[in-house]
Amino acid sequence: MLAHTPEPPYYTVIFTSVRTEVNEGYADTAARMVELAAGQPGFLGVESARNDVGITVSYWANLEAIRNWKHQAEHTLARHQGRKNWYQCFKTRICLVERDYSFERQPE
Amino acid sequence: MLAHTPEPPYYTVIFTSVRTEVNEGYADTAARMVELAAGQPGFLGVESARNDVGITVSYWANLEAIRNWKHQAEHTLARHQGRKNWYQCFKTRICLVERDYSFERQPE
Repeated sequence: MLAHTPEPPYYTVIFTSVRTEVNEGYADTAARMVELAAGQPGFLGVESARNDVGITVSYWANLEAIRNWKHQAEHTLARHQGRKNWYQCFKTRICLVERDYSFERQPE
Repeated sequence: MLAHTPEPPYYTVIFTSVRTEVNEGYADTAARMVELAAGQPGFLGVESARNDVGITVSYWANLEAIRNWKHQAEHTLARHQGRKNWYQCFKTRICLVERDYSFERQPE
């Protein structure tokens, strides 16, 4: 499902990546990171999909919340494992959400 | 592959969606929209993935480029078709990319 976020402004982290062929530990760690992030102060939601490219978009109340999540101990360890084993390349973008628009289909 | 974007600041549009079961015309139109967007002034790149949720992240030089793309005639028609046929729900977020970080694996 789509993330339910408050009225802008808030922040988002766009993490795009290409994986290596190393799968060991990846799925468990990815699931654990979503669980951990959701418990962080200022977490607003997350969406994720992967085909050739993986995209994870997480939403945060402010930059401090993003900084705290970056330095969370278990997440820091997972980020090291990611560079060592799981990712061919990735890019992390820190963005200010300025505006948003929604559409929801009405029952017919 | 990941989009190659310039140094921030620049803009991004995060489009997250859940599809209906209607497939007619969808794939062709989606491919055409990527082709058309890539020809727009200020277009910097696009990444896309879909599992339960679809995420398309496009990158743009400035807000004017995003506005021009929104009002491009064929894109406007496709957006109407999207609401009518292809999407259960979606959310569009207009964001200022403030910072980014990259990782690229070195050959071993």
